[in-house]
Amino acid sequence: MGLDAVHRYAMIPPGKLLRPLLVLHAALTVGGELGAVLPAAVGIEGAHVGSLLHDDIIDRDTQRRGRAAVHTEFGPAQAVVAGNALFFSWFATLSECRRLGVPADRVERAMAVQAEAGVAICRGAFDELAMRGDLELGVGAYVAMARAKTAVLLAAACRVGAILGGGDAPTTELLGDFGDHLGICFQIRDDVLPYDPIAARAMGKPSDSDVRNRRPTLPVLIAHRRADPESRAALRHALLDETEPELALCRIRAVLERTGALDTAHAMADDHARRARELLTRLPATAHVAHVRALALLTRPAH
Amino acid sequence: MGLDAVHRYAMIPPGKLLRPLLVLHAALTVGGELGAVLPAAVGIEGAHVGSLLHDDIIDRDTQRRGRAAVHTEFGPAQAVVAGNALFFSWFATLSECRRLGVPADRVERAMAVQAEAGVAICRGAFDELAMRGDLELGVGAYVAMARAKTAVLLAAACRVGAILGGGDAPTTELLGDFGDHLGICFQIRDDVLPYDPIAARAMGKPSDSDVRNRRPTLPVLIAHRRADPESRAALRHALLDETEPELALCRIRAVLERTGALDTAHAMADDHARRARELLTRLPATAHVAHVRALALLTRPAH
Repeated sequence: MGLDAVHRYAMIPPGKLLRPLLVLHAALTVGGELGAVLPAAVGIEGAHVGSLLHDDIIDRDTQRRGRAAVHTEFGPAQAVVAGNALFFSWFATLSECRRLGVPADRVERAMAVQAEAGVAICRGAFDELAMRGDLELGVGAYVAMARAKTAVLLAAACRVGAILGGGDAPTTELLGDFGDHLGICFQIRDDVLPYDPIAARAMGKPSDSDVRNRRPTLPVLIAHRRADPESRAALRHALLDETEPELALCRIRAVLERTGALDTAHAMADDHARRARELLTRLPATAHVAHVRALALLTRPAH
Repeated sequence: MGLDAVHRYAMIPPGKLLRPLLVLHAALTVGGELGAVLPAAVGIEGAHVGSLLHDDIIDRDTQRRGRAAVHTEFGPAQAVVAGNALFFSWFATLSECRRLGVPADRVERAMAVQAEAGVAICRGAFDELAMRGDLELGVGAYVAMARAKTAVLLAAACRVGAILGGGDAPTTELLGDFGDHLGICFQIRDDVLPYDPIAARAMGKPSDSDVRNRRPTLPVLIAHRRADPESRAALRHALLDETEPELALCRIRAVLERTGALDTAHAMADDHARRARELLTRLPATAHVAHVRALALLTRPAH
């Protein structure tokens, strides 16, 4: 079983392909050519999947996209190495863009964005490990965590697409900020999912991952701040001490409902979605902008 | 404990700094400026250390450079993430070179070399996992493994230095080939070490790693090919079945001595060292070439 087979397993069937779509739409928005940017779009999906391979090892998640996780299927050492290969391939795809005619200075700037994003994501992942079990975490620290976990890569997708497509600095920054708000919105929705019984069933990955990893996600943090001492103790006990994840989820859900934390979390996500859409209105109204706007609609709550 | 502290622990005190030296000497050899290339030299040491962090997890090695390995000191999840951050930083250092005045097209070509090397190293590491315990492995497969494990990064160091320093294509390739031979030579010497009791004691890392990981290294492969059926069975048993590493090492050493495998392995290493030195003689005789030649001398057997 070779490395290519592992990559094929990890990447096909694909997920939503949100990051490649953002690369391509950003490039088209600034008047770039789709063909020459395509490798970078493939590359960022690889980097995303690579990070999932490592996350699943770290979180001991054995399911991903409705199938066995890569480390479960092929072994943890194999999954670490396969993830690394995808990180390096992300940069190799930029030289393919160069061969397809993208000027060297654009490739160099896209590389800088990718490298900076990669380091920021690692920094966030590292800090997140220390924040596990911390229910006193402020909303600011949560947003920083959500940014590193999701928004940094979405913003990088937009920036890389805009840079490779030949966009000017203000438009590149605007699209990057769009990706940032989109990413925070997505991460909040994702953090709410395990506590929404109907949505959780359709996830294709274990909904007890956050609880098993004692992850202080936004709804839990909001509920903890609002709850009376009794509910607060129940929440703390469920997240930190309860060894049966299903029971822990059930008890946390009860406190979230009592405190209205899910609605508040969704309202915060809505706010980031609104700001993402607002940014797009500042762009010239072309068909490509319409596509990017359509993506922003994905950030509406599923229910 | 933040990510920077882990990186500081992993990188200071440093190892031999061979890869940074190769970057700098290659840049100086082609007439490049040291200052502008310095970030890339730091970056490749980071990438090397990052790969060691992951290797130590995969090989369950708990010691490195005479101290606790990073995953032992800070945790395996932390070590995986810290390694990844160093991989991304490797590319971030190239944009620092750009800021220091290296032209974008050189940075882009250096990025391509780094990305290609990274993928090749991962491919080799992945294949190596499948080769563990395989005593029938041919010398060709071993050299391919040694190349991915060590020579690819040494060759990349030379190529990156030459490219950033403004070297022409033939000189860049020549220096790359030099790094390739140097790397294979180094890997063979490294593979011989655990079976040399005096050298093994000065290693600063566990000398039983190859045995514990059932790694078919060059001396063992040569001995296996040469040994009579009885010694061959002893070798196989020691590498594959013996659970006490010290005893396994002792038994393997006996077969290596009987078959003269260590001398043959050293002769192969000498041959690569000779070819590396020969390549350097084709370069103009400047002081910088003299430095690179001095490095080649490092490849002589320690005893």
